[in-house]
Amino acid sequence: MKAALIGPAPEHRPLYEARRSTPREQGPDAVVESVLAFAAELRAYGVEQYGTEPVAAGVCLPGIIDEAAGVALFAANLGWRDVPLRQLLSERLNGDPAADAAAPNAADTAYAADTPYAEATPSAEATPERARIPVVLSHDVRTGGLAEGRIGAGKGVDRFLFVPLGTGIAGAIGIDGKVEPGAHGGAGEIGHIVVRADGPLCGCGQRGCMETLCSAAAVGRAWSEACGDPQATAADAAKAVESGDPRAAAVWNSAIDALAAGLVTGLTLLDPRTLIIGGGLAEAGETLFAPLREAVRERATFQRLPTIVPAALGDAAGCLGAGLLAWDQHSAEVSSR
Amino acid sequence: MKAALIGPAPEHRPLYEARRSTPREQGPDAVVESVLAFAAELRAYGVEQYGTEPVAAGVCLPGIIDEAAGVALFAANLGWRDVPLRQLLSERLNGDPAADAAAPNAADTAYAADTPYAEATPSAEATPERARIPVVLSHDVRTGGLAEGRIGAGKGVDRFLFVPLGTGIAGAIGIDGKVEPGAHGGAGEIGHIVVRADGPLCGCGQRGCMETLCSAAAVGRAWSEACGDPQATAADAAKAVESGDPRAAAVWNSAIDALAAGLVTGLTLLDPRTLIIGGGLAEAGETLFAPLREAVRERATFQRLPTIVPAALGDAAGCLGAGLLAWDQHSAEVSSR
Repeated sequence: MKAALIGPAPEHRPLYEARRSTPREQGPDAVVESVLAFAAELRAYGVEQYGTEPVAAGVCLPGIIDEAAGVALFAANLGWRDVPLRQLLSERLNGDPAADAAAPNAADTAYAADTPYAEATPSAEATPERARIPVVLSHDVRTGGLAEGRIGAGKGVDRFLFVPLGTGIAGAIGIDGKVEPGAHGGAGEIGHIVVRADGPLCGCGQRGCMETLCSAAAVGRAWSEACGDPQATAADAAKAVESGDPRAAAVWNSAIDALAAGLVTGLTLLDPRTLIIGGGLAEAGETLFAPLREAVRERATFQRLPTIVPAALGDAAGCLGAGLLAWDQHSAEVSSR
Repeated sequence: MKAALIGPAPEHRPLYEARRSTPREQGPDAVVESVLAFAAELRAYGVEQYGTEPVAAGVCLPGIIDEAAGVALFAANLGWRDVPLRQLLSERLNGDPAADAAAPNAADTAYAADTPYAEATPSAEATPERARIPVVLSHDVRTGGLAEGRIGAGKGVDRFLFVPLGTGIAGAIGIDGKVEPGAHGGAGEIGHIVVRADGPLCGCGQRGCMETLCSAAAVGRAWSEACGDPQATAADAAKAVESGDPRAAAVWNSAIDALAAGLVTGLTLLDPRTLIIGGGLAEAGETLFAPLREAVRERATFQRLPTIVPAALGDAAGCLGAGLLAWDQHSAEVSSR
C-alpha cells in the first residue's frame, strides 16, 4: 500500500508519502483494517506537521471499480468481489452508526468503533464540519492518470492517454481534467487490445493482447527465454540492448512493434494530445522512447501524432491521484453547502 | 446536402427536412453559396410555418474539423483544406461588416450582402437579439452520434459508441450527453483500427483497417467479386445471405468477424453502455445484428457487453445533430447574458 498526504489547490503538493505491506492473505476485513490504521498514521502526521485535520480521503485499488457506488466489483490481486469499500471506510473514518445500520453487509461493520483513526477523529457532534470526511473510491490506473494529468507529465494538457507498462498494461483516458471511467468502470483497458491475432494466450482469455507482448513482465519473460537466465527482467533486457546485444535488440524491437501497434489503435480512437508512458518499462528512458516514437510515427498515417513523454510521478501516481479525487469531492461538497 | 429545422428543448423535434445537391466541383465558395441559399429556404419555411426566426445554425461535414476554431481542416470529398467555414457562414448569416473586415480570406467575403438569406434576415440594428445567429461547425459523424444519443437510439444512455457502416466506417464516442472530439478533432475513427495486419491496403495508407473489411462498400466489393456481378452491393449480399447462398454467407461472416474484432477493441478501450450501429450495412437488420451480437459475445472475455442496437435516425442523423449543437450554442449564449 502506498499513501500520501496531498496539500490544497492549486498546487496540490504531495506533502508526505509512505508505504506499508498489504495483508491480502487475511481477507478484505484485514485489508480494510490496515488501510484504516495507515490512514490514522497519515492523519496524525498531518495534524502534527500542519496543525490541520484532513478534509477528505481517497482510496484506489486495481481491478474493476464501480466509482459511483464506491464498490470494488472485482480485484484479482486482493481476491475481492463486490466489496463496498467506500462505505466500510466512510463508516470507520466518520464513526457513523446510522451508516452502519444501513450497511448491506452487516458482518463487515463489526469493527466500527475501535480503530486508531476513529478514536483520534473528533466526534460528529463536536465539530460536525470537520468530522465528516468524504471518502472516494477509484481505480489505481485512473487515479494515476488523473495525477499525471494534473500535477505530472500531462499538466495543462486537455487530452492525454496514460499507459503504464508494468506487470500488466492498463490505461487512463484523460479528457478535460477528468479521467473517463466508461459505463461500467472499465474504460482505458488498452493492455487488452488484441495486436496479434495469433499471439500468446492472455490471462484475460483473449490471444495476442498488448499486455502479453510488451508489458515489463512480457519483455522480462522474452529476454529470460532468449538469454537463458530465468531471473532476467525487462530492466536487464534494456541494459543488454544498450550494450549492443543483438538478441536483446530482437526482443526489444518485437515488444516496441506490438506497443506501437496498440498505441496507434488507441490514438486512432481517442486522438490524445499527449501519450504518457509509465511503469517499469518506461524506466529504460530513451532506450524505450526513441525507438517507440519512431515506430508510432511509421505506423500512423492520417492520425495526428501526440507528444510521447515519460510519466513523471512514478509508482506513487495512483495514491496521489486518489488524493486529488478526494480534494475534488471536498470542493464539490463545500461549493454545494 | 441534408438540412433540417429542429424544434426547441426538451424534445428537439425535427420539424422539416430537405436535400439538395452539393456543387462541390465548383469549389468552396460555391458550396458556401449553396449552403447559404439552402439555409435561406429553411429559414423562410420556418418563418412561414412557425412564425419565428431561427435562433442558431449548425453545419457539419465529413473530414477533419477543428470545432473550436470553426475550420474545416481537411475534407477529402469536398477537396477542402483549412476553410474557415464557421466564419464564412457567420458573416453571411449575420451580415457583419466588422467580421468581414477581420476575415483572413478576403476573397471569400466578396458575396457578403446579396444572398437571399442576408436579405431576408433583419438587420443587426433593427433586432439585435435575433439577428445575431450563432453558427457552429462540426463533423458529420460526431453530430450524427450526438443526435442518436439525444433523440435517437442512445436516448438517455450515458455512454455509447455510434458506428455507421457506409462507404467508409467512422465512429462517435458519446460521453454524458456530448460527443468527444479528441485533441485535434480526430477522435472516434474506429474504421481505421487495424484488425488484420496483412489485410487490404486502405485509402488511409494502413493495411487491414476495419473499413477495408466490413464497410458497406467493402462488403459490396467482396460480394461483387464472389458472385461475378460488378454492380452487386452490400444490400444484395444481405439478400443472398437470407436466401441461403453459401458464397454470400462466407462473405458476410468474414465481414462480421472483422467488424466484431474492431468493435471489441473499441469496447475494450471505451466501455460503452450501448453500441449503435448505423449506415447502409445496418439496413440488413437482424441478418447483420443477430450474428454480430453473437460474434462480439464470443470475442469478449472480461469486457462488459454493451447493448448492440441499430441507429434510429438514418442518414439525416448528421444534420439533426448539427441542429442540436446549434441549440446548445444558443442556450449557452442565452445563459451567459
